[in-house]
Amino acid sequence: MFEAAELGRSVSKADFKQAEPDLRLALLHAQRLARQRGLPVILLVCGVAGAGKGAMVNRLLEWLDSRGVQTHVFWDETDEELQRPRWWRYWRKMPAAGNVSVMFGAWYSRLIQEFLQQGVDAEGVGAELERIRAVEQMLIDGGALLVKFWLHLPRDEQARRVEKRRKDPQSHWHMAPETAQAAEHYGSFLSIATRVIRETDTGHAPWYLIEATDQRFRDLTAGKTLLRAIETRLSSAEPRETVRTSHAPALPDSASAQVTILDQLDLSLQLDRAEYKQARKALDPRINRLGWRGFEARHAVVVVFEGSDAGGKGGAIRRLTEALDARLYRVVPVAAPNDEEASHHYLWRFWRQMPRDGYWTIFDRSWYGRVLVERVEGFATEAEWRRAYHEINNFEAQLAEHGVTVLKFWLSIDRDEQLRRFEARKETPYKKHKITDEDWRNRERWDDYKAAVNEMIIRTGTEYAPWHIIPANDKRYARIEVMRIVSETLAQALGDDDPKGQR
Amino acid sequence: MFEAAELGRSVSKADFKQAEPDLRLALLHAQRLARQRGLPVILLVCGVAGAGKGAMVNRLLEWLDSRGVQTHVFWDETDEELQRPRWWRYWRKMPAAGNVSVMFGAWYSRLIQEFLQQGVDAEGVGAELERIRAVEQMLIDGGALLVKFWLHLPRDEQARRVEKRRKDPQSHWHMAPETAQAAEHYGSFLSIATRVIRETDTGHAPWYLIEATDQRFRDLTAGKTLLRAIETRLSSAEPRETVRTSHAPALPDSASAQVTILDQLDLSLQLDRAEYKQARKALDPRINRLGWRGFEARHAVVVVFEGSDAGGKGGAIRRLTEALDARLYRVVPVAAPNDEEASHHYLWRFWRQMPRDGYWTIFDRSWYGRVLVERVEGFATEAEWRRAYHEINNFEAQLAEHGVTVLKFWLSIDRDEQLRRFEARKETPYKKHKITDEDWRNRERWDDYKAAVNEMIIRTGTEYAPWHIIPANDKRYARIEVMRIVSETLAQALGDDDPKGQR
Repeated sequence: MFEAAELGRSVSKADFKQAEPDLRLALLHAQRLARQRGLPVILLVCGVAGAGKGAMVNRLLEWLDSRGVQTHVFWDETDEELQRPRWWRYWRKMPAAGNVSVMFGAWYSRLIQEFLQQGVDAEGVGAELERIRAVEQMLIDGGALLVKFWLHLPRDEQARRVEKRRKDPQSHWHMAPETAQAAEHYGSFLSIATRVIRETDTGHAPWYLIEATDQRFRDLTAGKTLLRAIETRLSSAEPRETVRTSHAPALPDSASAQVTILDQLDLSLQLDRAEYKQARKALDPRINRLGWRGFEARHAVVVVFEGSDAGGKGGAIRRLTEALDARLYRVVPVAAPNDEEASHHYLWRFWRQMPRDGYWTIFDRSWYGRVLVERVEGFATEAEWRRAYHEINNFEAQLAEHGVTVLKFWLSIDRDEQLRRFEARKETPYKKHKITDEDWRNRERWDDYKAAVNEMIIRTGTEYAPWHIIPANDKRYARIEVMRIVSETLAQALGDDDPKGQR
Repeated sequence: MFEAAELGRSVSKADFKQAEPDLRLALLHAQRLARQRGLPVILLVCGVAGAGKGAMVNRLLEWLDSRGVQTHVFWDETDEELQRPRWWRYWRKMPAAGNVSVMFGAWYSRLIQEFLQQGVDAEGVGAELERIRAVEQMLIDGGALLVKFWLHLPRDEQARRVEKRRKDPQSHWHMAPETAQAAEHYGSFLSIATRVIRETDTGHAPWYLIEATDQRFRDLTAGKTLLRAIETRLSSAEPRETVRTSHAPALPDSASAQVTILDQLDLSLQLDRAEYKQARKALDPRINRLGWRGFEARHAVVVVFEGSDAGGKGGAIRRLTEALDARLYRVVPVAAPNDEEASHHYLWRFWRQMPRDGYWTIFDRSWYGRVLVERVEGFATEAEWRRAYHEINNFEAQLAEHGVTVLKFWLSIDRDEQLRRFEARKETPYKKHKITDEDWRNRERWDDYKAAVNEMIIRTGTEYAPWHIIPANDKRYARIEVMRIVSETLAQALGDDDPKGQR
């Protein structure tokens, strides 16, 4: 594969000088257009050690307008990163709309290093390559331009450079930490790199192989390639949204044929005050203890609350958090994104809130807004919400792989109960602020929401992050159910087989 | 001091039940007003171990609307925090306008722990107390409401609780990590706490001592105190801005009496092309080497570029970064803040950009905007920009204490040179975008800017972060001067006595 980058191509000083001003001007122009159009650009810079990745990026930075360009290097994984799902460290560096993130190595270097140094096997590599393809696809679907450079040097040239630098006191320091030992592993490095490049060289995120032996050739090629990638992306119409057909069978029109999962719930379930009190008495200390055990075991928990308006999310969250120590959890109410959030991929603001190992994040509404309110109200296009099921499953799988317990609750009430609660809220002084015109409008679209909820539960109920559908017409029953499920799930995850807490 | 919190006060269940609904309603109302008015609320929760800080915060969280409330615990300092100035970890948790940050322990717990466990001496404590007073003052001046709770338990009660929890399997886990050993150190803990509280109990940020023996008394007191603090702050008119008189002597009106530091610069200094090339040949590898040495020594660098419009900041930065490896530095161009930044203290967005140990952040414009453009254009009130000198010195002192090298450059050109450059920019295609109407407007206020720059240099030129005023009419001269100063300062900081790089 790399023969194409060992042709000995070069650019003379004179040619470089002639080409540079035009290229620079064109790059600035393209960058400005990209900013106006809100295009986020992710430039991945990978390649063999000693190829001058740093020098090439320096040149690009010189050509570009530094406003809105950020470079990121991922050498040492910090403990804040280690204590979160693998991809968190990349999400936190994703460019906002109109900005450019230059990422050195990123997910590719990590994978190659894990293979070469930490003994990840071929199967593990395969799984990660699949994850990479999925994430890149998602970033691109989300509107980003992803440009991937691979800088190549022939074996002799790499050895020559490393040796020369080792000897030359002036440039001795001019080497990234990994460069020095690189030459010895050229063969095995290239062999894994070949697989990685081949399997991630997709139509929508191709690799650009750049011959790096001659610096001027390397830099001009990089600049022109980046330019063309931006220009092509900007000149094409909005990426065509191919709406996949729904996998759900088309149901007959009659009412009895439209029964959903939600209709089969027994909403009459309830607890009286004494039963409720007794259940709390057992569950409160148990959950508290599990919170501390999870903290000690460095086990993270993500709890998602979704449900009809007035379904009792807030109350259920409050009962759950009463049992937990305030230092261990955070409640994140999800409303409209602020402008920093709105300028990123829709999942970015949730990645941002992922708890560190040992802590809990409790979401009052969540990323499921994409397939609920955004679908029903038309804030997301059909293509967007349709692919969101898959994106969300992928996202939650990453949490689960890291060892996070993911709990998802749908609090279900019927239309009459909702009306009763709306009316009651208007009467209770400290609840009045919770009822808005929007709630009444949403209520008009009850059936649309029902269909959306039904599809959401079908498509995103996974073994690693199942939905718990809670009959919530009776608040006491719903709250205890939530606490019971949290407690049982956690006990299982933590290997706590001692339901009475006697240890 | 603590006698006042050992009176055995309590609230009956009935009284609590009666008081709670009104308090809750009032708190919600106050919180909503605070949000509307954009008031950031910082609630510090400190006190003796076992007093139920977590339980009390849980109660407050139950009463408040969870939107915009975040709790922060500072148990384990992460390496990302350790590798930045001490206060960075608190700045990253500061509430945005209208939000509430509940901080457990925060800077107080750290100080007390350092004294008790790490042998920081009385003098060290005194220095940190002074820092605390200064930072709290700055937060309050910046518009925040700071509420400080100290939860107290008598010695016997603490011992009893710790013992009871140790024995009770149900609540064994119900203890923050630090609680268990606390009882043994009650005396020494209280003695340092007394000093800390006394010396930070300032008029604008008083401590509220809360008797925590009875839970209902504790929670009601906390809720009512928080309520009163918010109400008082909202009902008072905007905090009166006391404009301190300038310390600068009033100068006679004649032109010759108005000479500033900037007038004494020799702007005729220049380098010819050959001198420039030769200097670069020596400086480029040297700075590259120092960058890598700094990386290995985990030494952070902050470089600030300020200067007249068209003073050549961008060009000087580009020459400097050409020498550095792209993976080691980040250039941060400072323009108008985004809305997340604008909703915080003006220094927040710069704290956010502080490099980790081993890396560089290069600011193209900086926090000095506060005393330059914001002063001249009237975006900051006189009281705001006047106190900014002190705030900035304090900020930079914190960087220096952590071991960051702070380099500040003012690139100075005269009015004629500026006009020449403005005209030239209009002609150069890839520079045209750099010249705006605003630049022409600023030019009209040349003398106001000159006065502001002069005062800035006088008031913020410190031994730990001196200003370097660079005659910049000749670009080559200015660029080499900058690189020379960077290189010499770094060599000194790193103990690199080998100017030729022969090692």
